[in-house]
Amino acid sequence: MDVLDWGGAAGIEAEEFLVFPGMDELFALLEVNRHARSGEYDVLVVDCAPTAETLRLLSLPEVLSWYFEKVMPTERRLMKAARPILTRLTDLPVPEDEVFVAAQSVFISIESVRELMSRPEVTTARLVVNPEKMVIDEARRTYSYLGLFGYGVDSVIVNRVLPDLVSDPYFDRWRTIQKGHLDVVDDAFAEVPRLRLRLFDDEMVGVERLRVMAGELYGDRDPIYDFKAVSPFRIVEGEAGVTMELDVPFVEKSELDVFRHGHELFVRVGPYRRSFILPDALHRREVTRARLEGGTLQVSFGDPEGGR
Amino acid sequence: MDVLDWGGAAGIEAEEFLVFPGMDELFALLEVNRHARSGEYDVLVVDCAPTAETLRLLSLPEVLSWYFEKVMPTERRLMKAARPILTRLTDLPVPEDEVFVAAQSVFISIESVRELMSRPEVTTARLVVNPEKMVIDEARRTYSYLGLFGYGVDSVIVNRVLPDLVSDPYFDRWRTIQKGHLDVVDDAFAEVPRLRLRLFDDEMVGVERLRVMAGELYGDRDPIYDFKAVSPFRIVEGEAGVTMELDVPFVEKSELDVFRHGHELFVRVGPYRRSFILPDALHRREVTRARLEGGTLQVSFGDPEGGR
Repeated sequence: MDVLDWGGAAGIEAEEFLVFPGMDELFALLEVNRHARSGEYDVLVVDCAPTAETLRLLSLPEVLSWYFEKVMPTERRLMKAARPILTRLTDLPVPEDEVFVAAQSVFISIESVRELMSRPEVTTARLVVNPEKMVIDEARRTYSYLGLFGYGVDSVIVNRVLPDLVSDPYFDRWRTIQKGHLDVVDDAFAEVPRLRLRLFDDEMVGVERLRVMAGELYGDRDPIYDFKAVSPFRIVEGEAGVTMELDVPFVEKSELDVFRHGHELFVRVGPYRRSFILPDALHRREVTRARLEGGTLQVSFGDPEGGR
Repeated sequence: MDVLDWGGAAGIEAEEFLVFPGMDELFALLEVNRHARSGEYDVLVVDCAPTAETLRLLSLPEVLSWYFEKVMPTERRLMKAARPILTRLTDLPVPEDEVFVAAQSVFISIESVRELMSRPEVTTARLVVNPEKMVIDEARRTYSYLGLFGYGVDSVIVNRVLPDLVSDPYFDRWRTIQKGHLDVVDDAFAEVPRLRLRLFDDEMVGVERLRVMAGELYGDRDPIYDFKAVSPFRIVEGEAGVTMELDVPFVEKSELDVFRHGHELFVRVGPYRRSFILPDALHRREVTRARLEGGTLQVSFGDPEGGR
């Protein structure tokens, strides 16, 4: 334990930075990226926190990219213009251009991790649910938001399923309730493999017990290579023109918004939003239609020069 | 679903603000404050998210206050000095002083909710754990961090305890494991009431079933008035001088840091930090000692003018 008078505020700012909202996720992402780029692994498993936190983590590259591309350049130019005058006028601290250069290098790492995470042949998500109504509802929302951010889901694991060998009548009603929820899971996530894991009679901690768990869960399947995810994002060229498709299952029309602003298309699902930079080929095409069909958002672009 | 070209970037910025890290917690806090100040309630129950998210919520007033008090006034003065020149030099957007005035009013609300939440006769925290090792460990950490931020804990509820009427041998081992964990909870949280709730045989959803749950949990006790929390923060004047005491149970010496900077005392526990504005009487006193005893941090101040 240290008791000391700090020399200046600089130390405090560096400390404070660490507890500022979003910073822990940022450092977590940069760590994931560092490990991924090191090549020293067979598979990287990121055991994610509950939904809200995980989505915050997964949407951070998007949010930060937006800030770094739209807001920071303006701030930087503003400072460049103002710095000589400000330093003569006042003795207040004026951010040096190096601050922006340093921020730029963080941005490059974020772009790198975003690139890595949005390729379904490299990165997939595996959803784990308990057979409880609220948990399953949350998993559905998560699935939609993952789609929005371009993350592919490769399987759904239902954990804590009451095993058949339990005969105690205390659990009869519970078993009936679980059965209903298992059916809901099978319906809702029909397009991806669904695995089940029983409610164990022990705390499944330590490598030995995790091995038992893996055996019951995956059987003969390879936990890594036997599960594939499909990208929820596609550009489809047809006779009628070009269509951008985004799988956002379980989303209602009312929760969905599509906006175009210049060369960007903004899609919002519930509280989350993502911008898609339009490919050059689409720059001069108008959006002719946006519709939601079978859990897929389809945004159609007309011919260039306003024809169709 | 709307497809439209936005007129300008202003709309985007307002939207983006909503998904920026920390903003959802900020709005949640302001909502809590609004309800609390309305007076139209008997008791306000905030059902919190898992630990990390909740601590982020609870530490936000501290983090934001620091920003509003230390960083924003400098930014505002800087802008005041620079604005006339900048607007002549460039057509980049320059923040108006109204932006800072608006931010100031948010700050006043945050201070108001902080004041409300740190009074243990008004606000208490109730910890809910399952009888599992990791969950209990996390609850201990939470208890420490709550102490750091000045939140008093009034009870600990152990949920999903296997009831005696289950006789199935499948759960024999589980019962033994749970018994061990229940003992750990009783030891760890000895100074606050501990309540137990059985693993129910049904999904406890809806008012009727919640009433059954409340009956089993609280019995004859009033869920609100029969539980009191004690503030984890005290200023103690003794013969040897003035001592600031802060209850941070379960914390190791190595996780704790104490720093003084001017009229502020910074205490850090693990990843969280809080600043305490020293009362006037302590401004001219040196910190003579900081020690951790029985889960309480004691920071002693000597006599003014360097004596003791």
